[in-house]
Amino acid sequence: MRLTPDAGGVFPIAPTPFTPDGAIDWTSADRLFEFYAGIGSDGVTVLGIMGEAPKLEPDESVELVKRAAAKMGGKPIIVGVSAPGFAAMRSLARQVMDLGAGAVMIAPPSSLRTDDQIVTYYAQAVEAIGTDIPFVIQDYPLTLSVVMTPAVIRRIVQDNPSCVMLKHEDWPGLEKISTLRKFQAEGSLRKIAILTGNGGLFLDFEMERGADGANTGYAFPELLIDVVRFSKAGQRDAAHDIFDAHLPLLRYEQQQGVGLAVRKYVMMKRGILTSDAQRKPGAGLTAAAKAEVDYLLARLAKHDPRAKI
Amino acid sequence: MRLTPDAGGVFPIAPTPFTPDGAIDWTSADRLFEFYAGIGSDGVTVLGIMGEAPKLEPDESVELVKRAAAKMGGKPIIVGVSAPGFAAMRSLARQVMDLGAGAVMIAPPSSLRTDDQIVTYYAQAVEAIGTDIPFVIQDYPLTLSVVMTPAVIRRIVQDNPSCVMLKHEDWPGLEKISTLRKFQAEGSLRKIAILTGNGGLFLDFEMERGADGANTGYAFPELLIDVVRFSKAGQRDAAHDIFDAHLPLLRYEQQQGVGLAVRKYVMMKRGILTSDAQRKPGAGLTAAAKAEVDYLLARLAKHDPRAKI
Amino acid sequence: MRLTPDAGGVFPIAPTPFTPDGAIDWTSADRLFEFYAGIGSDGVTVLGIMGEAPKLEPDESVELVKRAAAKMGGKPIIVGVSAPGFAAMRSLARQVMDLGAGAVMIAPPSSLRTDDQIVTYYAQAVEAIGTDIPFVIQDYPLTLSVVMTPAVIRRIVQDNPSCVMLKHEDWPGLEKISTLRKFQAEGSLRKIAILTGNGGLFLDFEMERGADGANTGYAFPELLIDVVRFSKAGQRDAAHDIFDAHLPLLRYEQQQGVGLAVRKYVMMKRGILTSDAQRKPGAGLTAAAKAEVDYLLARLAKHDPRAKI
Amino acid sequence: MRLTPDAGGVFPIAPTPFTPDGAIDWTSADRLFEFYAGIGSDGVTVLGIMGEAPKLEPDESVELVKRAAAKMGGKPIIVGVSAPGFAAMRSLARQVMDLGAGAVMIAPPSSLRTDDQIVTYYAQAVEAIGTDIPFVIQDYPLTLSVVMTPAVIRRIVQDNPSCVMLKHEDWPGLEKISTLRKFQAEGSLRKIAILTGNGGLFLDFEMERGADGANTGYAFPELLIDVVRFSKAGQRDAAHDIFDAHLPLLRYEQQQGVGLAVRKYVMMKRGILTSDAQRKPGAGLTAAAKAEVDYLLARLAKHDPRAKI
Repeated sequence: MRLTPDAGGVFPIAPTPFTPDGAIDWTSADRLFEFYAGIGSDGVTVLGIMGEAPKLEPDESVELVKRAAAKMGGKPIIVGVSAPGFAAMRSLARQVMDLGAGAVMIAPPSSLRTDDQIVTYYAQAVEAIGTDIPFVIQDYPLTLSVVMTPAVIRRIVQDNPSCVMLKHEDWPGLEKISTLRKFQAEGSLRKIAILTGNGGLFLDFEMERGADGANTGYAFPELLIDVVRFSKAGQRDAAHDIFDAHLPLLRYEQQQGVGLAVRKYVMMKRGILTSDAQRKPGAGLTAAAKAEVDYLLARLAKHDPRAKI
Repeated sequence: MRLTPDAGGVFPIAPTPFTPDGAIDWTSADRLFEFYAGIGSDGVTVLGIMGEAPKLEPDESVELVKRAAAKMGGKPIIVGVSAPGFAAMRSLARQVMDLGAGAVMIAPPSSLRTDDQIVTYYAQAVEAIGTDIPFVIQDYPLTLSVVMTPAVIRRIVQDNPSCVMLKHEDWPGLEKISTLRKFQAEGSLRKIAILTGNGGLFLDFEMERGADGANTGYAFPELLIDVVRFSKAGQRDAAHDIFDAHLPLLRYEQQQGVGLAVRKYVMMKRGILTSDAQRKPGAGLTAAAKAEVDYLLARLAKHDPRAKI
Repeated sequence: MRLTPDAGGVFPIAPTPFTPDGAIDWTSADRLFEFYAGIGSDGVTVLGIMGEAPKLEPDESVELVKRAAAKMGGKPIIVGVSAPGFAAMRSLARQVMDLGAGAVMIAPPSSLRTDDQIVTYYAQAVEAIGTDIPFVIQDYPLTLSVVMTPAVIRRIVQDNPSCVMLKHEDWPGLEKISTLRKFQAEGSLRKIAILTGNGGLFLDFEMERGADGANTGYAFPELLIDVVRFSKAGQRDAAHDIFDAHLPLLRYEQQQGVGLAVRKYVMMKRGILTSDAQRKPGAGLTAAAKAEVDYLLARLAKHDPRAKI
Repeated sequence: MRLTPDAGGVFPIAPTPFTPDGAIDWTSADRLFEFYAGIGSDGVTVLGIMGEAPKLEPDESVELVKRAAAKMGGKPIIVGVSAPGFAAMRSLARQVMDLGAGAVMIAPPSSLRTDDQIVTYYAQAVEAIGTDIPFVIQDYPLTLSVVMTPAVIRRIVQDNPSCVMLKHEDWPGLEKISTLRKFQAEGSLRKIAILTGNGGLFLDFEMERGADGANTGYAFPELLIDVVRFSKAGQRDAAHDIFDAHLPLLRYEQQQGVGLAVRKYVMMKRGILTSDAQRKPGAGLTAAAKAEVDYLLARLAKHDPRAKI
């Protein structure tokens, strides 16, 4: 299914499962996508930064998209296609759309500085992949060191009809959501979906500022779904209650560089992944870190039975 | 009192109080330092990044140190002296030590890249300020974009006997604390105080990894003191319980660029500061953000009566 | 004399002379400014990046401006006032203007990224120093890592009537000069002086693109004056001939980090400075580098007798 | 032919020829490699930063290596294989070695900061591509923003026997060559080839400091060969004479972002390339810039008849 500007809900960022010897663990991949579909995800993102995409061979990337498409029950698949050159971006984008992807996600290269450079980059990317492919802007200054103002995002959206979503991952970013929604209310920005990232660290308030959902990873994506649902239903306290119960672990998982190891470790403990291995080069958790995660899980389980593992 | 490698506990990073028209609010400054002393702080840090130091006139900086010294009851005062040149650093360092400061804190300039450049910079800084002034290394890659490995910190500590403390603000940084304490256990690193930053976002586990306390800001520094005390007393669950209760607000305050406005707003509501004004240029909170903070305070008050304000 | 948008010609960036023990060498400073005035400089810039400004005590900075004012025969003095905070910037700016400076030069801090951040920064700087002080924009992305588009420069100029000059130091930057002059021809940008930097490495063509002169350093500022004069007189080949003769040495002096040592070494050999010392921390030339400079000087002397030293 | 640590001379960085509609111009590619072989190049580098490598499809990259191998008469071909992930790096490296490449060149990703990170990265890269493939370290801080000290380079060389060459492109970098050769003389560093970059801007002195040659681009690679030959023959003045004659143009071509357009424009005028087109996105020269290059060529032709075009 093609992604549209009306998208919303939770699109987990899928980790790529590996066996301890570095091969892709396809059984776990299938189970992972079934899990995402089963808990009510509205779609999934593969080959994102947290998906270890640059470590994959081209045919592995393609196969992963196929598996996601097969298991996600028609829900839209977003595929990260960021690349140092437009040739590779175009090639991957067109290939995965043919396989049933719903959109591609494009992050700006870290060399971009000025407003015009950023706007031009997206124009060139759209020209490269074709105007028929829906795309998601990834706005993630903490890691990419490219800063997009709301006005720059507006220019990209208004210039490119195929832009359907903003993966909002600025930090801090609450006012940015409010500003973009104000642009929309004023009529200077057409409606696009805004799904937030940052591991969900501000999802409680992002929803209240006008986000449509989350496009991020966390070992308990059910929590993201809970917060989005409670929020959309106007149950503010309920949204914050469940969010706050998860916040100690969610914060722990949000650590740059360590976060993926935490996520995979918990998802292994949950039985979703067979192994928490990362393909080389990748850092594992120390015994101290594992014990900390176990402690956080035990504390979480008092509030959320899903954490009893 | 001079700072020594045996320091520990909580040294709040003091915001600088201003009146709405931009003058320093000396009455609030006095009240603030009395407050810090009254709750049992082990010292205080002034002219830090969150102290709006670059906006102060030289005589204002000096007066602020005097006020801190007068009110902190002999507890050590750490003074941020980071500067683009060693002339200004030396001048401020020697002046504040004469006024009773206990140590100075030095952050590396963001242009440093290699291990040797960082080590050389600290050697030059020590030569500039004099070897008789105790100093604190500020290790804050997220903002300063200088990455110090544990081995580099060890070289600085071992090369410079006047280094007494590490303000540990790497992120993530739990393994860094463990590694430094391992160096110390192995005998390759002498004992220094390690106090952590990052607004306390990982203080619960940092204490367990070997930190001696916190050198950071939060609108409820009592929470930092609680966590440090429970941790040192071996009351792990109690430390996490009170920490987790504050985490939603603490996380909100930890937002880069917005955090100081949140901190001042809450400290104003608590009656510690008369105004939450920042000297220009400085961002205030939107109405939406204030309402969010109020909501977080109301939720926190259910767990911690000190938040009933 | 106040700097105006009609300024032009050559404003050498003055190095600060030191004795080998690190004191300012005021005799050499006087001789240096007399030299600049004597060769027909149209002004001078002090406390620039190459003036070792951050190593100076406040009273030394002020005294240096006084000396320049006393010796430059009424020619405008530009004073670098870039600082991490507006308090120090305002204080220095107002002080040096009282002493007879003609303008201040302001570089953007390296943390700025978006167009709006840059424009806002200059608005705040002007508010801090006062709208009555003429100022120069320093556009130097290679060192400052802030990228200003021509449109951003236009916004700063049009928003701030006290902006009188652009120190153009983008690299490459020929098209930027052409674009700014086109803006001016079209009426969207008022006339400001454009003086170029980068050690003069592209001065030959910068003049042809519309620059008004050079605001940069080189051990033979007479060469910069020659190129500007020949260029303004329409003697293209003569401008390039003398420029090309100096290019091997000029290029050598343009090396980041080493350049100042080369410049001081040559100016010492020329008898303008008594010593080529830099205040600590500062790198000297190796014997190999000195021999290379000597060789370049010997080769240059065949074309330009001023290099017979 | 495999590249060895005894390599030396000139390895031009080959631009990739395109037709105006963006296809690879294979006829020009063949002519280009014949030209390089004909003038006495000691090898060639393809898929470098200036080769527009990220814009090529995988099969185009491979074909380009084949063409180079076919035309270079057995001289070693260095292939740039830098990539955001090791999967792509390994895949391309193994493929091109099978096609007859002599070595691969690996640049560090710009996210690396500490000495250990850089050393670890190269260890991982070698593990990925295999220890049987000779590789070249690309040390280019100006563009890559990774700073390698001589000691770091030594660690990489000593740790990895398959390292055969340093593409030295630090700026400034003369002392770095001297330091590395001193390491070698002292016995702490084994012999590797050092070939320099930066468009040749310091080739005159780099040779005198101990470089083995040049691995860089310039529209007249004959000049690079002349300088290397005169230098190796001890004809210092002759080396500088021809170098200085080319310096005005060489400097013009060395402008970041514009340089490739200049190089292709001149090589088109020389009849080596049929078109000066770059594949999108790529900047062309303005009419003003073309006229400046033409003027520089006319001036150069007075000293070097090869520039009469």
